[in-house]
Amino acid sequence: MRKRTLTVALAMTLAGGAAHADEGMWMPSQLPQLAAQLQAAGFKGDPAQLADVTKPPLAAVVSLGGCTASFVSPEGLVVTNHHCAMGAIQLNSTAEKNLIQDGFIAATRADEVSAGPASRIWVTVGFDKITDRILTDAKGKTGRAYYDAVDAAKKTAVAECEADAGHRCSVADMYYGSDFYLIKQLELKDIRLVYAPPRAIGNYGDEIDNFMWPRHTGDFTFYRAYVGKDGKPAAYSKDNVPYAPPAHLTVSTAPVKAGDFAMLAGYPGRTFRHRTASEFAGQIDWLLPTRVAMYDGLIDTVEQASAGSKAKQVAYASSVAGYKNTLKRAQGELEGLRRSDAVRVRREDEAAMLAWLGKQPGAKAKLAGIRAMQAELDADDANRERDFILPFLRPGLLGSAVTLQRLALERGKPDAQRETGFQQRDEALIEGGLKQLQRRYDPEVEKATLRYALKRYFALPAGQRVAEFDAVFGSNEAEAAQRLDALYAGTRLGDEATRLDALKLDASAFAASDDALLKAAATLQPALLRLEAEAKQRAGELLRLRPAYMQALIAYRNSQGRAVYPDANSTLRISYGKVSPLSPRDGMDYRPLTTVAGIVEKATGVEPFDAPKPLLDAIAKGDFGSTADPELKTQTVDFMTNLDTTGGNSGSPVLDAQGKLIGLNFDSNWEAVSASWMFDPRYKRAIHVDMRYLRWLLAKVYPAPHLLQEMQLPAE
Amino acid sequence: MRKRTLTVALAMTLAGGAAHADEGMWMPSQLPQLAAQLQAAGFKGDPAQLADVTKPPLAAVVSLGGCTASFVSPEGLVVTNHHCAMGAIQLNSTAEKNLIQDGFIAATRADEVSAGPASRIWVTVGFDKITDRILTDAKGKTGRAYYDAVDAAKKTAVAECEADAGHRCSVADMYYGSDFYLIKQLELKDIRLVYAPPRAIGNYGDEIDNFMWPRHTGDFTFYRAYVGKDGKPAAYSKDNVPYAPPAHLTVSTAPVKAGDFAMLAGYPGRTFRHRTASEFAGQIDWLLPTRVAMYDGLIDTVEQASAGSKAKQVAYASSVAGYKNTLKRAQGELEGLRRSDAVRVRREDEAAMLAWLGKQPGAKAKLAGIRAMQAELDADDANRERDFILPFLRPGLLGSAVTLQRLALERGKPDAQRETGFQQRDEALIEGGLKQLQRRYDPEVEKATLRYALKRYFALPAGQRVAEFDAVFGSNEAEAAQRLDALYAGTRLGDEATRLDALKLDASAFAASDDALLKAAATLQPALLRLEAEAKQRAGELLRLRPAYMQALIAYRNSQGRAVYPDANSTLRISYGKVSPLSPRDGMDYRPLTTVAGIVEKATGVEPFDAPKPLLDAIAKGDFGSTADPELKTQTVDFMTNLDTTGGNSGSPVLDAQGKLIGLNFDSNWEAVSASWMFDPRYKRAIHVDMRYLRWLLAKVYPAPHLLQEMQLPAE
Repeated sequence: MRKRTLTVALAMTLAGGAAHADEGMWMPSQLPQLAAQLQAAGFKGDPAQLADVTKPPLAAVVSLGGCTASFVSPEGLVVTNHHCAMGAIQLNSTAEKNLIQDGFIAATRADEVSAGPASRIWVTVGFDKITDRILTDAKGKTGRAYYDAVDAAKKTAVAECEADAGHRCSVADMYYGSDFYLIKQLELKDIRLVYAPPRAIGNYGDEIDNFMWPRHTGDFTFYRAYVGKDGKPAAYSKDNVPYAPPAHLTVSTAPVKAGDFAMLAGYPGRTFRHRTASEFAGQIDWLLPTRVAMYDGLIDTVEQASAGSKAKQVAYASSVAGYKNTLKRAQGELEGLRRSDAVRVRREDEAAMLAWLGKQPGAKAKLAGIRAMQAELDADDANRERDFILPFLRPGLLGSAVTLQRLALERGKPDAQRETGFQQRDEALIEGGLKQLQRRYDPEVEKATLRYALKRYFALPAGQRVAEFDAVFGSNEAEAAQRLDALYAGTRLGDEATRLDALKLDASAFAASDDALLKAAATLQPALLRLEAEAKQRAGELLRLRPAYMQALIAYRNSQGRAVYPDANSTLRISYGKVSPLSPRDGMDYRPLTTVAGIVEKATGVEPFDAPKPLLDAIAKGDFGSTADPELKTQTVDFMTNLDTTGGNSGSPVLDAQGKLIGLNFDSNWEAVSASWMFDPRYKRAIHVDMRYLRWLLAKVYPAPHLLQEMQLPAE
Repeated sequence: MRKRTLTVALAMTLAGGAAHADEGMWMPSQLPQLAAQLQAAGFKGDPAQLADVTKPPLAAVVSLGGCTASFVSPEGLVVTNHHCAMGAIQLNSTAEKNLIQDGFIAATRADEVSAGPASRIWVTVGFDKITDRILTDAKGKTGRAYYDAVDAAKKTAVAECEADAGHRCSVADMYYGSDFYLIKQLELKDIRLVYAPPRAIGNYGDEIDNFMWPRHTGDFTFYRAYVGKDGKPAAYSKDNVPYAPPAHLTVSTAPVKAGDFAMLAGYPGRTFRHRTASEFAGQIDWLLPTRVAMYDGLIDTVEQASAGSKAKQVAYASSVAGYKNTLKRAQGELEGLRRSDAVRVRREDEAAMLAWLGKQPGAKAKLAGIRAMQAELDADDANRERDFILPFLRPGLLGSAVTLQRLALERGKPDAQRETGFQQRDEALIEGGLKQLQRRYDPEVEKATLRYALKRYFALPAGQRVAEFDAVFGSNEAEAAQRLDALYAGTRLGDEATRLDALKLDASAFAASDDALLKAAATLQPALLRLEAEAKQRAGELLRLRPAYMQALIAYRNSQGRAVYPDANSTLRISYGKVSPLSPRDGMDYRPLTTVAGIVEKATGVEPFDAPKPLLDAIAKGDFGSTADPELKTQTVDFMTNLDTTGGNSGSPVLDAQGKLIGLNFDSNWEAVSASWMFDPRYKRAIHVDMRYLRWLLAKVYPAPHLLQEMQLPAE
C-alpha cells in the first residue's frame, strides 16, 4: 500500500534515522560539518570553501531584495530571472520601443540602460554570530521588556555596522530567538539592464503555467552592476564603471541529466518547518480551511455586489485577483499538507523528541520550558478567530480613516519612536495608498464586504468580541447594515482631495472632526492599540521561550547524527540535492528535463503561449550546436531538481558538482506549495531554466555574441 | 527536433517500409497471413486458430450490440463493462434496492435477474466472403441502380441466412465496396445480471475521468446467457438453463507489466482510416472546425435564450449536454489530427501510392478509375456547406412536423418499400420521440436556434440555397425572424395530444391542414426528398468507384510487405500490440499500470470520486493476496496498451501471449480521440480494467467466491 508505506518512510525520515539529503536551507557556516553528506551526494568541490561568504562561489551570489542573482563575469555581469527584472524592463519600455514585448539587447556597454534609481544589488560581505551581544540585556526580562531589549540591541548593532559607508546591515534571528547573526551587505546602486528575452520567452505560459510542470519558460535576464570610479557604490552616473565582484560563477558547458548532483545558493524568504506540532495543527486544521472559506465567500461577495456594473468590476478587479491568488495558494498548501499527512507526521516527530528529551540530563527544567512556550501558544490561540477576522473589518476607505488617525497619533512622537510603518520615510507610501484607493473603491461593494465580515464577527464567542468594534458596528447584522449605511453616507473621505487633506491634520483636529468614518476610526483606535500591545507582549514571550523548544529539537536531531538548518529568513542559504523526476500522482511521471518540442506543442499564437516567430523558426531549423543535449538529441529548456527552495530563491544560481552554473531557479511545482511548512521529499521540486537554453538563445535566436564571449562561452 | 523527427518517422511507417505492429483491426481470416508478425510480437499460440470464429478464443467473444463481451465459464458466464450493462442494472434498481449505487451480487443462479426483454448477446458463428454473389447484378450499372442492386442482393442473402431460426444475419461491406461478408450470429435472448460493482467502483471518476489517464475505474459486470431446455435461444423463462458456449476464455493469474504482448478481440464500430487524402483534408480543414464553430455558437444561443428561466434551462439541459459532448469530441479529434499532421501525412502517403501505381501494369485504367472517384468526391464537396447546415433547420418541433409529414407519405407504400426508419417497426420509436419532445421543447429557444442556423444558411453561396427553404424562411435574417414568429404562433403541434393525433393522419389530411408548421413541412418535403435521392445516387457511385482506390492501396501496401485491414464496421476484429506507457506531451510520461493508491488520491467522498468505504478500508488493510503485483507490491487497477480500438470495443477481452484473459477494454485516452481517422502510434492507447483488480474485488471487497470458483480462480 503505497500511501501508508511512503508516509511511514517520511515519518521515519523526519523523526529519526539518517537525514534525507535533500531537505535543508543551510547557513554557509554549516557546510563544513555537512562535508561527508555533500561528498556522498556527489559534490566534487571543497565543502569548507562554501562556508565563506566572501569567497567563491558564495561571494558571487547576491540579493536583489526578494530575488536572488549572481555575478557571471569579472566585469559585474549579473544573471537573474526575467520576472525579477520586470520592473527595470517596464521602466525602459515605451509605446515605440516595447522591451517587454520585444526583449532587449544592449549591443555595447554604452547601450546598457539604468534599471532605475531604486534598483539595488546587495553583496553579502559579513555573516557573523552575535547572539551574546543581542541577548545580554534581555536576560532576566520577560514579555514586552524582553522584546524591547532585543530590539534595542539589534538597532545598535545595525547602526554600528552601517557606519561603514555603502553598506546595509541587519540582524537575523536564527532558530526562533536562539541565535542572532549580523548580516553585512555591500549596497550597489547603479544597476543596468543588459539583456532580456521577449516576454513570450521570459514569461512563456505566464499564470497558466505558473507552479506547473512540464515548463517551457526562458525566465532569465542580464544586469550589470556599476560603481564610482573609486570602486565604491554610487548612484547612477554616466561616468561610473563596471563593478569588479569578489567572485563570479563559471557557466557550465557540460550536459545535465537525471540524478546529477545540484546545489543552489540564494536568499529564501520564510519557512515554518520548525514550528511546533500544535502550530502545524492550527495551520492545517484551522487557519488554512478558515482562510479558504473566508476568501471564497469574499470573492462571491465582491462579485455579487459588483454584478451588472462595469465600473465596480473594474474597481475591484485587482482586489479580486489578489483574493483568488490567496485562495489558490491556501488551497494548494492545504492540499499538500493533507497529502503529506503533516499534522500526524509532525505530532509523532514532536512526541518522539519529547520522549527522548525526558531521558536527558536536566530533562525536568527543559520540559518545563517547553510547557511554558506551549502555554503561551495556547493563549495566542484563544483569540485566533478574533485575530483572524478583525483585519477584514477595516477595508478600503474605512481602513484609510484608521491609517490617517494612527498617523496623526504617531506624528506626535519623535520620528525614531514612531511605530514601524508610520515614520517619516513611510509617509509617501501612505499617501500613495490614499491616492490609489480612488480607483479601487466603491461604497456599495465596501459595505457588502463589511457586512460579510461582520457576519463572521458576530458569530465570535462572546469573550472574543471587542467593545469598540461593537460600538461602531452594532451588535447584530441588522444593526450593522443600518450603521454601515450611516457611516458611508456621513463621510467625505470618498473624495480624494478630502482624503489627502486629512494627511495634514493633527490628532486634535481628528478629535474635532464630524466625519462619520473618522469618528468610527477614533472609536476603534484604543482597541487597535490595546490589541497591538498585547501582541507585542506575546511576541516577546515567545521570543524568550521558543529557544528551549528549538534547542531540544536541535539536540534530538544531533543525537541522530542530523544537523538542523534555521527556518528561512531572507539570509544567504545553500541547499543541495539532485536533478529529479517527480511522480505527482499514481500512474504519472514528470521527466526532469523539458525540450523545445514542448514550446511548439504549447504554442497557440495567443498570449501567454505566443512563442515568437524567430524562436519557432530556430526550433524548426533544429540547429542547436553545442547546446544540444547529447542523449535527447535536441535543445532542453527547463529542468527540475529536488532542491530546497522557497519564495526569494527566484533567480538563485543552480550549480553542478564542480560548482559551475547549470541553471537559474525560477519556480516550484504545485505539489510543493506546502513546502513552506513541510518538506515532503516525494513532492518537493524546484524548477530551473537550463543554462543551455539561455546559451542557445544568445547564440542563435536573439544573438548576443559579446555576452557569450564575456562569459567565455562557445559562440554557438 | 522531436516533432519533425517523429512526424517523418510516422510518415515512413504509414507510407512505406515495414508496418508498425500496433495498427490494425484485423478480420479473423487475415490472422494466418500475419503469423510471422504475431509471433515476433510475442504471441505464443497458433495464429491459424485465430482465423476460425467458431473455435476458441474467438468463439468466446460476443457482441452486445454497441459493446463487446466474452464467455468466461462453460456455463454461460459473460463479462463485459459496467457501462455496457448500465441499462440492465438500472432496470433492476428501485428506490429501496439501488443496484447502481450499491452494486449487485447474485448469491445463487436463482438470484440472477433478467437484464430485460430487449437484452441480447450475439455469438458470431459465420463470417464468409460473398463478394461475387453481392456484386453480380450490380455489374455494368451505375449510381442509384448500382446502389439498389447491391441492396437487393444483400437483403436476399440476409433473408436466406436468417431462415435458420435463432440467428441474425447481416452483410458487411469491407474495403468500401470491394468485398462483402455474410455475418451469421446466434441470437441469445435470455440475459441475466449476475454481478455488478457499485457505481463508485464501476464508474469511478465518471465524466471527469472519461478519456483520461491515469484511470482508476473498475468498469466490469457479469452477465449469464440462458437458453431453452433444448439448448436453443429463447426469451426469458424461469425454466431456461445456462447456455453452454462453444468456447470460453480462461482468466490469467499471471502478472501484467510494461512491454507484455497483448491482443484484443471485439466489435469496433466505425473508422475512416482508408479514406482519401481529400477526405482527410475535408475533415480536418473544413468539417471539424465548422462543427466546432457551429456547436460553440449553438450552445451560446441556447444558453442565452434560456437565461433566467429555470424551465427552459431544464428543457434544454440534455440537448446542451449533447452539444457539449459533440463539441468536445470534435475539438479532441481536431487537436489530435493536427498534432499528427494528418493532412500532410495522408497526402504524402497517397501521392506515393499514386506514383507507385503509375509504374504498374494497367496503370492508365487504374488511375482513371481513381480520378473518377475523386471527381465524385469533389462533386459531393460542392454542396458541403449546404449539407452541413440543412439538418439544423429542422430542430425539435419543426423536425417533428417534417417527420410526421414523411411518415404519412411512407405509410402510403407497402411496408417493405418504406424508407428505413419509417417502417411499421419504427413507428413506436417515432411516437416516443414525439412524446419526449414535450419535456425538451420551448418555442422561444427553438426559434433562437433557428435564427442562429438561418444566419449561416443565408450566408451560403447562392448556388447552394434551396428554393423550398427560402420559401419557408424568407431570404434574410429580418424576414426569417418574422416568419419564425408566425410559424410558431400558428401551430398547435406544441400540444402533445395534437402531435400524437397527427400520427394517425394520412397524406391528404396533411395537405388540407392549416397548421403553420405542418404547412412549412409540406413545403420542405419535395426538397428533402430530392436531396435524399441525390445523396443515394452519389452513394451508389462511390460504392461502385471506391474499390479502385482501395485495390490500389492494398496492392501498394502489399508491395511493401504489409497487409491491410478493412475500416471498422461493427464486425469481429482482432488487434495486437503491447502493454505501453505514453508520453502525452513533452516532459510527461504516463505509466502503463495504475494502482489502488490512485483511488485513495482521487477520493473526495463526493460523486464521482466517492470511493466506497469497504473499498477504502480494504485498500488501507493492504491485503491483496494473489492479485498483488509482484513488482509494484500493491494492487493494480487499470492498465494501458497500444491496441487498436474504437467505439464498440467497450468490454472487449484483452488477452496475453497465451490467449488468457488479462483485462477488459473500456476507454481510450484523450490523445487518441482522433484515431478513428488516423492511428498515430505515438498517442493511440487503449484503457483496460486489470483482471487482477476484478479478482481482488470478488475475493476481498464485494465477495463472490462462487464466481471465482466457476472461473477456476484462486479464492484470494
